[in-house]
Amino acid sequence: MTIQSLTEQIRNKVSFLCVGLDSDLAKLPPVVRNHPEAQFAFNKAIIEATHDLAVAYKINTAFYESDGSKGYQALEKTIQYLDQNHPNHFTIADAKRGDIGNTSTQYARAFFEKLPFDSVTVAPYMGRDSIEPFLKFEGKYAIMLALTSNQGAYDFQTLNTVDRSLYETVVATSRTWDGADRLMYVLGATKTEHLATIRALTPKSFFLIPGVGAQGGDLESVFHAAANDDIGLLVNSSRSIIFASSGDDYALAARNAAMDLQQQMKKLL
Amino acid sequence: MTIQSLTEQIRNKVSFLCVGLDSDLAKLPPVVRNHPEAQFAFNKAIIEATHDLAVAYKINTAFYESDGSKGYQALEKTIQYLDQNHPNHFTIADAKRGDIGNTSTQYARAFFEKLPFDSVTVAPYMGRDSIEPFLKFEGKYAIMLALTSNQGAYDFQTLNTVDRSLYETVVATSRTWDGADRLMYVLGATKTEHLATIRALTPKSFFLIPGVGAQGGDLESVFHAAANDDIGLLVNSSRSIIFASSGDDYALAARNAAMDLQQQMKKLL
Repeated sequence: MTIQSLTEQIRNKVSFLCVGLDSDLAKLPPVVRNHPEAQFAFNKAIIEATHDLAVAYKINTAFYESDGSKGYQALEKTIQYLDQNHPNHFTIADAKRGDIGNTSTQYARAFFEKLPFDSVTVAPYMGRDSIEPFLKFEGKYAIMLALTSNQGAYDFQTLNTVDRSLYETVVATSRTWDGADRLMYVLGATKTEHLATIRALTPKSFFLIPGVGAQGGDLESVFHAAANDDIGLLVNSSRSIIFASSGDDYALAARNAAMDLQQQMKKLL
Repeated sequence: MTIQSLTEQIRNKVSFLCVGLDSDLAKLPPVVRNHPEAQFAFNKAIIEATHDLAVAYKINTAFYESDGSKGYQALEKTIQYLDQNHPNHFTIADAKRGDIGNTSTQYARAFFEKLPFDSVTVAPYMGRDSIEPFLKFEGKYAIMLALTSNQGAYDFQTLNTVDRSLYETVVATSRTWDGADRLMYVLGATKTEHLATIRALTPKSFFLIPGVGAQGGDLESVFHAAANDDIGLLVNSSRSIIFASSGDDYALAARNAAMDLQQQMKKLL
């Protein structure tokens, strides 16, 4: 998928909503829990209830790996279902990978070649040669952690490194890397005071912003601090959409929660 | 497994060798490549050829994920084989995970509960609450990236943060976290000049040191810079052992390469 077609989707749907499929087996509604392919069945129902409201789906790999190879199969079926039935949605493997070059190449192949993801989230600690292998795939994107939404973000990300914070150095440095036009950034919605700083460092990049909803971020202030002329934002909501109800009406409740966010986005756009 | 029993294994075998199962499908010897479970068959042969010389096995998750759910099954069978047949070996999921708390908990469950790994490698960028979930499991360990062996290590890890480098801050800060007695560190063998600095910051922690062999690190200088009274080291070698030969003699060649390293370790101990 190209950035241009993602931006078109955002304008057409008047939405920059990404739905996070953090489909924790222990939290699935009882009505679906005994299904032989419970995670996939749940995801399929959530996707069908929200696809006209969302432009992206984010699959959090941890919630599948925790069920071993059976979980990995559910992840595989979910991304293949999206690829075949909703090819215009931008898909994100939320995996926070990053390792020495030949290992990062294997991770990139796992998500971009073996599976048809459009993008994968990556961690910056190991630097340039741990990220560039993800940026070599035409039409595929790496979304790098910049400033995250959790408390631990203040342990290292906000440390001063000579003349600015580590997260600013991470973003500024990464703009010099090969394939940086295919690099996006993860920015926590709970840190709106820093969003404008990062937008100034990289005016054209897309930002993936989790943390609206369960983690407490505010959509309007995020939008005003971080949107660019092409919008350039994907705001993710996971638990507050997919687990909006634990009853038999879970898919409808997910739709209503997604619509509520999409309507807020419509006002801002 | 306890740290005490790992140290006993090291003394009994006169070895601190960790064999890295970076079992790249494309590099498997032709004799095993057409086996219906090629990765597992290869791993089993390598394990049987080296288990008396090694105290630990490290499974690099990228080389399994790149083959999708079939690869994940090979990973699963390998760690289950180790757990059942060689329970005294320390096992490492080399996965470089790390995310917000509830997601890190899922990763910890994936490796410690669903699979019987003794430890998992983790990335520090997201800070305390992204690592502590891994430190809550009795007899299980997290091995955090401190200073890695790749060129990109100089992008961020060696930046000055006020009065010291980021990697020093990462190690020093992490010593204050809950469960820090179950925290180990990944340190690149190619950075021996920094190993003594980190040893001073955490005298008792185990270090996992990749990069001896294919990545160019020197065993003797690593040992002198980083060993403590209990040795406190695991030196990993992957490609130079497991792909020592691509012929039918690959297992014997792996044994000879492992023995060569173990003999060097014996001299140092």
